[in-house]
Amino acid sequence: MSKETRKRIEVCFTPGGFEHFKNDFNVVVVIDVLRATSAICAAFEYGVNSIIPVPTIEEAWEYKQKGYLAGAERKGQIVEGFDFGNSPFSYMNPDFKGKDIVLTTTNGTKSLDVAKDAEIVLVASFLNLDAICNWIIQQQKDVVCLCSGWQDNFNLEDTICAGAISEKLINTGYFYSTEDSSIAAKYLYESAKKNHLGFIKSSSHRRRLKKLNLNKDVKYCLTPNQTSVIPILKDGKLVKL
Amino acid sequence: MSKETRKRIEVCFTPGGFEHFKNDFNVVVVIDVLRATSAICAAFEYGVNSIIPVPTIEEAWEYKQKGYLAGAERKGQIVEGFDFGNSPFSYMNPDFKGKDIVLTTTNGTKSLDVAKDAEIVLVASFLNLDAICNWIIQQQKDVVCLCSGWQDNFNLEDTICAGAISEKLINTGYFYSTEDSSIAAKYLYESAKKNHLGFIKSSSHRRRLKKLNLNKDVKYCLTPNQTSVIPILKDGKLVKL
Repeated sequence: MSKETRKRIEVCFTPGGFEHFKNDFNVVVVIDVLRATSAICAAFEYGVNSIIPVPTIEEAWEYKQKGYLAGAERKGQIVEGFDFGNSPFSYMNPDFKGKDIVLTTTNGTKSLDVAKDAEIVLVASFLNLDAICNWIIQQQKDVVCLCSGWQDNFNLEDTICAGAISEKLINTGYFYSTEDSSIAAKYLYESAKKNHLGFIKSSSHRRRLKKLNLNKDVKYCLTPNQTSVIPILKDGKLVKL
Repeated sequence: MSKETRKRIEVCFTPGGFEHFKNDFNVVVVIDVLRATSAICAAFEYGVNSIIPVPTIEEAWEYKQKGYLAGAERKGQIVEGFDFGNSPFSYMNPDFKGKDIVLTTTNGTKSLDVAKDAEIVLVASFLNLDAICNWIIQQQKDVVCLCSGWQDNFNLEDTICAGAISEKLINTGYFYSTEDSSIAAKYLYESAKKNHLGFIKSSSHRRRLKKLNLNKDVKYCLTPNQTSVIPILKDGKLVKL
């Protein structure tokens, strides 16, 4: 890639704002740090074969009736009747190895649904930060990071992860940003850089998870580069790239 | 006000996101730094009697036919058939003194429309930053800053102005924020603090205005504390508090 043919890297704060970006990007990177996309990365690291993301609890339930391992999370908690939600630790289970898993979550599976028509849809978190950046740098494509947010509102942790990806790509000299949301994400990542957990301590979703005793999950989800897997959406299923 | 009865100061990035904040706040502070709310502040500083904000060009035109001074701006430019748009300098005109003026703009009048049912609706910009903060500190009310954004997308300059207001209020010890958008606005303002223009140089709307040769407007709009006027919405009209 030459400097003359630089590609765009932009940040979209919420699934609701994606309409503005929809038609201009080949690659969509879906981010839901706490915890859906972190859990998906962990699942592939620990050997699941595929993950079928579904937007509703009803669809997840139908799969479960058919014998699938199915997880469902709403508002940070496992939905009644399901065995797991979106804690990354649920997926570090030998029984899940080689299996096809179904998952619905409050925010993350919604943004996968919004992104699904793009040429390439990837799943990112702090856990696979370097791996996903290195792969994207090899492509000559325009990229948008789609933050899942919280019930279609801005959230800090997804924005900072998107800012981290942007910074890494822009630092190569082959990518640039034009949107104010992308510039803000980069500044917020710079403020956060020295201490991920410290910066996000004040975030509303972290407080929500702390109340549910999920601090261990939060710490894991904010630790960069635990895996080199890159989950990609193929025919409605997430698989390892 | 005692520390035990602290009030909230939150930041909403776009008019489209206001639904989430709508019912929880007594005071809405509408911000459209480049340039609607800056122009409105300048207009009152230079002696206009009232400003009637209208959402559509058609409504502005009807007022014009009735003999009102009517301004209309879309995408940074004066709409054909109108004499002025939202350049603050248009309002520094002796002919406007004591007059009732009608105005429609791309983003700013839209957020005034979204906010209009709140108990108190104020207009803020960098131009009246200290004045509006000092007045709000006297009230015992929950406050939300409503950024006008750009066509319902996040923008930097409004967010940073909202971050400046938040910081001033929180520093008194009598206000607090809980939303991630508010925390982000405060961090972005901290990054911007040393050099307003420098930080916003990269913003997309500033680039848009630069192309239209509106650098003089941008510089004026980013200069804090040029006036102590506080425009307030009363029965559909903006007047001086």
